[in-house]
Amino acid sequence: MKALVYHGAGKMSWEDKPKPSIQFATDAIVKISKTTICGTDLHIMKGDVPEVTDGRIIGHEGVGVIEEVGSAVSSFKKGDHVIISCITSCGKCGYCKKGMYSHCENGGWILGHLIDGTQAEYVRIPYADNSLFPIPAGADEEALVMLSDILPTGFECGVLNGQVKPGDTVAIVGAGPIGIATLLTAQFYTPAQIIMIDVDENRLNVTKTFGATSTINSQQSNVVEAVLSLTDGKGVDVAIEAVGIPATFELCEQIVTAGGHIANIGVHGKSVSLHLEDLWSKNITITTRLVDTVTTPMLFKTVQSGKLQPTHLITHHFKLDQIVEAYNVFANAAKEKALKVILTN
Amino acid sequence: MKALVYHGAGKMSWEDKPKPSIQFATDAIVKISKTTICGTDLHIMKGDVPEVTDGRIIGHEGVGVIEEVGSAVSSFKKGDHVIISCITSCGKCGYCKKGMYSHCENGGWILGHLIDGTQAEYVRIPYADNSLFPIPAGADEEALVMLSDILPTGFECGVLNGQVKPGDTVAIVGAGPIGIATLLTAQFYTPAQIIMIDVDENRLNVTKTFGATSTINSQQSNVVEAVLSLTDGKGVDVAIEAVGIPATFELCEQIVTAGGHIANIGVHGKSVSLHLEDLWSKNITITTRLVDTVTTPMLFKTVQSGKLQPTHLITHHFKLDQIVEAYNVFANAAKEKALKVILTN
Amino acid sequence: MKALVYHGAGKMSWEDKPKPSIQFATDAIVKISKTTICGTDLHIMKGDVPEVTDGRIIGHEGVGVIEEVGSAVSSFKKGDHVIISCITSCGKCGYCKKGMYSHCENGGWILGHLIDGTQAEYVRIPYADNSLFPIPAGADEEALVMLSDILPTGFECGVLNGQVKPGDTVAIVGAGPIGIATLLTAQFYTPAQIIMIDVDENRLNVTKTFGATSTINSQQSNVVEAVLSLTDGKGVDVAIEAVGIPATFELCEQIVTAGGHIANIGVHGKSVSLHLEDLWSKNITITTRLVDTVTTPMLFKTVQSGKLQPTHLITHHFKLDQIVEAYNVFANAAKEKALKVILTN
Amino acid sequence: MKALVYHGAGKMSWEDKPKPSIQFATDAIVKISKTTICGTDLHIMKGDVPEVTDGRIIGHEGVGVIEEVGSAVSSFKKGDHVIISCITSCGKCGYCKKGMYSHCENGGWILGHLIDGTQAEYVRIPYADNSLFPIPAGADEEALVMLSDILPTGFECGVLNGQVKPGDTVAIVGAGPIGIATLLTAQFYTPAQIIMIDVDENRLNVTKTFGATSTINSQQSNVVEAVLSLTDGKGVDVAIEAVGIPATFELCEQIVTAGGHIANIGVHGKSVSLHLEDLWSKNITITTRLVDTVTTPMLFKTVQSGKLQPTHLITHHFKLDQIVEAYNVFANAAKEKALKVILTN
Repeated sequence: MKALVYHGAGKMSWEDKPKPSIQFATDAIVKISKTTICGTDLHIMKGDVPEVTDGRIIGHEGVGVIEEVGSAVSSFKKGDHVIISCITSCGKCGYCKKGMYSHCENGGWILGHLIDGTQAEYVRIPYADNSLFPIPAGADEEALVMLSDILPTGFECGVLNGQVKPGDTVAIVGAGPIGIATLLTAQFYTPAQIIMIDVDENRLNVTKTFGATSTINSQQSNVVEAVLSLTDGKGVDVAIEAVGIPATFELCEQIVTAGGHIANIGVHGKSVSLHLEDLWSKNITITTRLVDTVTTPMLFKTVQSGKLQPTHLITHHFKLDQIVEAYNVFANAAKEKALKVILTN
Repeated sequence: MKALVYHGAGKMSWEDKPKPSIQFATDAIVKISKTTICGTDLHIMKGDVPEVTDGRIIGHEGVGVIEEVGSAVSSFKKGDHVIISCITSCGKCGYCKKGMYSHCENGGWILGHLIDGTQAEYVRIPYADNSLFPIPAGADEEALVMLSDILPTGFECGVLNGQVKPGDTVAIVGAGPIGIATLLTAQFYTPAQIIMIDVDENRLNVTKTFGATSTINSQQSNVVEAVLSLTDGKGVDVAIEAVGIPATFELCEQIVTAGGHIANIGVHGKSVSLHLEDLWSKNITITTRLVDTVTTPMLFKTVQSGKLQPTHLITHHFKLDQIVEAYNVFANAAKEKALKVILTN
Repeated sequence: MKALVYHGAGKMSWEDKPKPSIQFATDAIVKISKTTICGTDLHIMKGDVPEVTDGRIIGHEGVGVIEEVGSAVSSFKKGDHVIISCITSCGKCGYCKKGMYSHCENGGWILGHLIDGTQAEYVRIPYADNSLFPIPAGADEEALVMLSDILPTGFECGVLNGQVKPGDTVAIVGAGPIGIATLLTAQFYTPAQIIMIDVDENRLNVTKTFGATSTINSQQSNVVEAVLSLTDGKGVDVAIEAVGIPATFELCEQIVTAGGHIANIGVHGKSVSLHLEDLWSKNITITTRLVDTVTTPMLFKTVQSGKLQPTHLITHHFKLDQIVEAYNVFANAAKEKALKVILTN
Repeated sequence: MKALVYHGAGKMSWEDKPKPSIQFATDAIVKISKTTICGTDLHIMKGDVPEVTDGRIIGHEGVGVIEEVGSAVSSFKKGDHVIISCITSCGKCGYCKKGMYSHCENGGWILGHLIDGTQAEYVRIPYADNSLFPIPAGADEEALVMLSDILPTGFECGVLNGQVKPGDTVAIVGAGPIGIATLLTAQFYTPAQIIMIDVDENRLNVTKTFGATSTINSQQSNVVEAVLSLTDGKGVDVAIEAVGIPATFELCEQIVTAGGHIANIGVHGKSVSLHLEDLWSKNITITTRLVDTVTTPMLFKTVQSGKLQPTHLITHHFKLDQIVEAYNVFANAAKEKALKVILTN
């Protein structure tokens, strides 16, 4: 089969690889129908994720059709259409029993990381019963690609951890795909205000059509002043970090109100300054989280009922064998006005 | 009347001051029976709290007897015995209605800070109906002094915010009075292990008799290794910071397990390094809080039922007019083996 | 002044009464701008509420303008526009401190019940600082009448107690004003399905325009079968009782799924059969609640932000002195297609 | 092998049965070391549980040693010592993913009910990875038999569902084994009072040594008056029903305070009267639950740390082949002063 293979920092190729086969009784082999590219894949391609070694097939998102199942798989059979979760869950370790699949002792984030991933014609999915979700006939499969990672990530790490409530004021720092996934799912809880903060005017304009009540361009305004002005001088109830650098996290520390929440989504490469000299008495809560994908069944229901429109996130389409070109577009997201790309096999 | 008065950094005196009188219809005047000294009072005396100005009567803890009430006070009358809360609550602002009295728009921590306090023969208590708690006949009033500040602080900022649960492993960094108040109230939730960490061997030994299951002297051991060794290599479910310096907060970052909680109690004077490069994916929660004293009625019930023994915290007794000597003892707590001192009027 | 006065079962009149005056320092006198009639007022008029005695002015909802405040009132002054809460809260008893204002030891539901109410030109409001909410300039005051009682009732007793979550299936039994208030506020949490059940086809049709995803006419269908058919045979996650008779409560017992919630809003006059022989092993939760109005500030924010449209509930308008006629319309709600009426002073 | 076999109402025998064998790759065969008898087994023997058919081996509790595992079992191997959960969990259905194992689509309560159980020399355990818990070397295995059912039942259905909190007043109606399991685990949350209510003076006396603060003999006292007298006229915060008949459930309705919880544990055979005419406005919560055994790992930690002493529950010991005699003792629990019996293979 063909697959996108990582060959060290800056080197990838669409090349022949052996088709995967069942290795354990709990495995399934899935023929990919549609996949996409994650910001994390760009980090991998730059060489920032040293666990990914030469020869690894990249990708941890997608939908497909079951090709074959191991003898212990009971929930799926050949021909079933499925969503692939970015997180592999064994269903039996202590973390899985607590709903913290991200830290599964036998899985977690392994696809396109520690084992071969989804940017390929076929992929092997360990613990298939717990790591795949069924797609009923007639569903919009392209929309459901967004349930592999980006929507549960925005929802769990941003919205749930931030404890967004009706009437709240929310700021989301970063209007890239993950910030927009957060924006879409924050509206499940009917906050009064959602303020989007970014440097890219195009992305900010897009967010206005997706439910943002205000936008702040951090290159053109003093963000702290602008947020205070929008919130009667109080700051926001929930500040969500969706970038992953010290400046944006520390901005969240400055704009959160007493009693508020800072929910970190960003993947950080270095430490940040936590200003406890100001925050020790402000009754705030700060959370971090690697997505658990524990809310995927719930998100699926909101998509099926029309309450959530994941296709808002999709800007570009390619054939799977055009994936190298797709990476180029996605790597220049601001210039290309790209959010998520769909690659169809 | 006589009172302990602050006269600038390093200067205090026990001197004559006018007896306070009712200023608002919601005030009460309380004759102090017993009061104590807080670590915060030491900071004030060093000049570290610039809002406290020359001439201020210090102190925010104590029990006493109502001397006079304003016309709008309905829950108390002359002669009633009361606990004075360190936090003044108006009962009607948005923060009070949310149970976040620490940020009361008309109160908060003002006693011995922005208005005259309790280290005196009499004190004026604003919003008496919401800021005092009744003491029934026959109660141990000395024990109840510990409900003014230290027990709700350890319980709310440490135990409740840390979400201590049955079976948990808990580490408390700092075995001073506040760390011990946390130790006592953490046992309300029956954790499997409570590990106390400090530099003072005497204090660590004391904690063993109060429920600590292990102690670590951070001057004699590698604390991170010791904690991992006590927890099957996992780290603790809850790490509680009860010191207020960067080193102890950053220790909490190192010993907390995936999915765990860091609850800050300490008053910090500078920022700390938050190692998001490690923590972003560890699903942790960090909290800060100024005590709200919202749990005082509940803590009172646990004292009355004998489940909580606040007298464990009391090591020294003085007459109120010996307060300068008491400050000297409390300022040399390690040498004097002091936790909380009681001053009796 | 003029007021609507109860004179025993079936007898009311619009007549002269003395204008109320300040009785306690915490009182305010409010000139009514707009008021409305509650289903509970109909019960009172039938003589079903024996605590209401001859001579009582009825009514517990409304907006108005402060005419005078007692000396201890600090949050309001003459001329301020206010929402009157149906629940009077002293702000200082144990129940108020827990946010359970409905059981306030000095208040609770007393307006138009134990003391004179709001269907009058003026009303005295005890504990004004805690029982009134400010209306900013430019707000739609007619809409805000719905915040006195019906919206917090539907939201707190139905939606919050029912723990409605994104993706849930919800059934609301009763499509009267309170059922519709529940329907409007349930959407704060983005359930996948909201099934309205009633006997009145007109009301069911109205609910479709307000967010119901399905309706069931219980006179035309087997409701249990219809609900199971709409929910893949499982029943609903949340069943909300908004009628107050045994048949509707027992219907909720039949349609709730394992692990689900039954939230009672209805005022019941007799006991119901709780089928523990079926339910003991179904992991369900049943709640009752008298509205606490603790969410009024939050509901106000959702109205101000346009997320909640209370005017959906308003079908009829009268002048205040037409109130007897308004009662006739409201008492024949089905025939008159009436939900809430507005009476303007 | 030998096993206790049900042969219709009132008929059981200790007889030869084929030794069970692996039927599915996820099965394990466990050699029973110790088992016990549950109140539910008595119901089965009376013929009250029609799903149990002639020839069924009874029993759903026990500890043992792994004899053989299926090819898909990864957490256990031959020779491992294990606790058998009374609830079988597949780990992959929607209910299991929500932690509601009691309603597992492929398991739930099946042992000694729908499939052969543990009152035998060997038992087949489906979904072994999710339905067994490891016992480390040196643990008190007899104590751990109490983790199969009775302790998680008392804790989950009574204590957790009742939301017992520090300082609460709790009443437990029924001082049999399940009531005592509730009493032991309620103390995890340090309530101020635990009132035990029963008809058996011996059992009430036993509970005093296990942490009850008061006892009420319902044959000798007016229970409602006695509870009100013990709670300043308020009633209890949490009323836990551990009997399973209408009278005891309706007693809970009478003694629960406003804002309180009624947690049902009892297995009910008929409906009860729910007095909504009194309760509709009392802000109460009623829960039902079949034990999920989701807290077994946590309970295990409290046993290992010495915080929970399950051996308090054990009154009698027999050899496994004396089981018919043991049933006789257990069926006459009051006369025999029996709580739980241990049967050793």
